[in-house]
Amino acid sequence: MAHQHIALDSVFHALADPTRRAVIHRLGKGEATVSELAAPFDMALPSFMKHISVLERSRLIASRKRGRVRTCMLDRDNLIAAERWFGEQRALWQNRYENLDSLLAKLNGDENGD
Amino acid sequence: MAHQHIALDSVFHALADPTRRAVIHRLGKGEATVSELAAPFDMALPSFMKHISVLERSRLIASRKRGRVRTCMLDRDNLIAAERWFGEQRALWQNRYENLDSLLAKLNGDENGD
Repeated sequence: MAHQHIALDSVFHALADPTRRAVIHRLGKGEATVSELAAPFDMALPSFMKHISVLERSRLIASRKRGRVRTCMLDRDNLIAAERWFGEQRALWQNRYENLDSLLAKLNGDENGD
Repeated sequence: MAHQHIALDSVFHALADPTRRAVIHRLGKGEATVSELAAPFDMALPSFMKHISVLERSRLIASRKRGRVRTCMLDRDNLIAAERWFGEQRALWQNRYENLDSLLAKLNGDENGD
């Protein structure tokens, strides 16, 4: 549980930035080199590399280096875990709204029965 | 688009903390006063109130004050928007994996046809 907390802390922290979300989006389409990933951004490479490091530390992406070229790819497990967290919260409040709906339906039924 | 970026930045920042995620989880079950929300945490009230402020600024929760009692409730729109972001990313890589599957199936079919 504590482990899961730390993973979600780090995943949500990593996703709280538009550049890092754009990298995740791009890698959803397939792996890419750091240069390819950096190309759309008006940003110095060292600054961009900091974003890549945050994403790697949070295990949202992985990378391998061949010669001087680093290639990045999505590591989907933590993305799936974070999406599941939202699903779990939604299940709580949807369940509550469905219970309210049944209660209202029951109250209406009782009224009609009078 | 820029507006959506800012909302997601703020939502993911707010969720990168276990206390704030626990508050969201609790409010999924129904509205609660600040004292009720704070009770499970070994935390001074001013520190807890900072978490409440972060959640309100990111529009994940709303609150109303009656006399000296502040009651909090979930504001679901931004939770839904954040969950949708994950769904959009998943659609990208799932689609890619399905394309790979069809390609592999086609290659296998071609081999069997030889």
